[in-house]
Amino acid sequence: MTTANTVDTVKSLIRDIQDFPKKGILFKDITTALRDKDGYKAIIDFMKEKFADKKIDYIAGMESRGFIFGATLAYELGCGFVPLRKPGKLPAEVISESYDLEYGKNTLEIHKDAIEEGKRVLIVDDLLATGGTALAACNLVKKIGANVVGMAFVIELADLNGREKLPKDVEVVSMLVY
Amino acid sequence: MTTANTVDTVKSLIRDIQDFPKKGILFKDITTALRDKDGYKAIIDFMKEKFADKKIDYIAGMESRGFIFGATLAYELGCGFVPLRKPGKLPAEVISESYDLEYGKNTLEIHKDAIEEGKRVLIVDDLLATGGTALAACNLVKKIGANVVGMAFVIELADLNGREKLPKDVEVVSMLVY
Repeated sequence: MTTANTVDTVKSLIRDIQDFPKKGILFKDITTALRDKDGYKAIIDFMKEKFADKKIDYIAGMESRGFIFGATLAYELGCGFVPLRKPGKLPAEVISESYDLEYGKNTLEIHKDAIEEGKRVLIVDDLLATGGTALAACNLVKKIGANVVGMAFVIELADLNGREKLPKDVEVVSMLVY
Repeated sequence: MTTANTVDTVKSLIRDIQDFPKKGILFKDITTALRDKDGYKAIIDFMKEKFADKKIDYIAGMESRGFIFGATLAYELGCGFVPLRKPGKLPAEVISESYDLEYGKNTLEIHKDAIEEGKRVLIVDDLLATGGTALAACNLVKKIGANVVGMAFVIELADLNGREKLPKDVEVVSMLVY
């Protein structure tokens, strides 16, 4: 069972890095939690508890840090894992979704045949910030005809209101809220 | 137990893509094995069997596909996970290792404080081809004072002789050999 105590322990393992990737940003470094076997286990177990009874068929994870948590959770829940990647990385036919960043645009891709129509999908990433990437991931999975049942994040930066961008019928879960 | 039968089943899930990422290359697409829950489980269980009794302290995985298998195996073996990343992606102080490609150079980075001296490390990636990336990963982990006990790959392209580049005292294991 994930308790308030567990959450505090994992929070204490996250390292703050000033001015990364650019000046003025306080970056939450999760690698210090990942390298701690108990911290890493606590993160995965938190997500597992939340979605174990939700009959998830596939987990989709965003490149690159979403691969870490998403693929592990897929193994634990007994699902397949589907990578959502940057342009040009997936070798077969893809569907794309572009989204706006503060400066410029980003694109996410999924293999067209990655998930069958109507399947229940959980999207996993390390961070929910402004919600741009998360919404693009949601749209991609819907475009190929599947249902987004939930989204799980390690960290949510609540001040950026990313959660409000996401569809209301999707269960959005974050372990550490700042 | 991983049998010859299991190996054949997983092999049948790997998709060949002609001319990716460039003309003349036959790309082994693992996403079709990853999306299959039994195929994905078989890959992880193979690696787990091979290293369960090797007292691994940390698993280091290469960006990006190494994150998928490495992080899952870390959870399963009860270890910490340490990402080896492309330049500029890790936020704290790093150590780098450059290596030659057919055209140009690549670099891998590790956080300087990711692994304590003398710890036992297993390196995980999806593919052993010419061995350049694998050797760089090995060198990086040694540079910060840890011991590389083993390396695990999903696929090995035996014709490219990557295995011969790797240190003789490291146990190198691949599930699918082509």
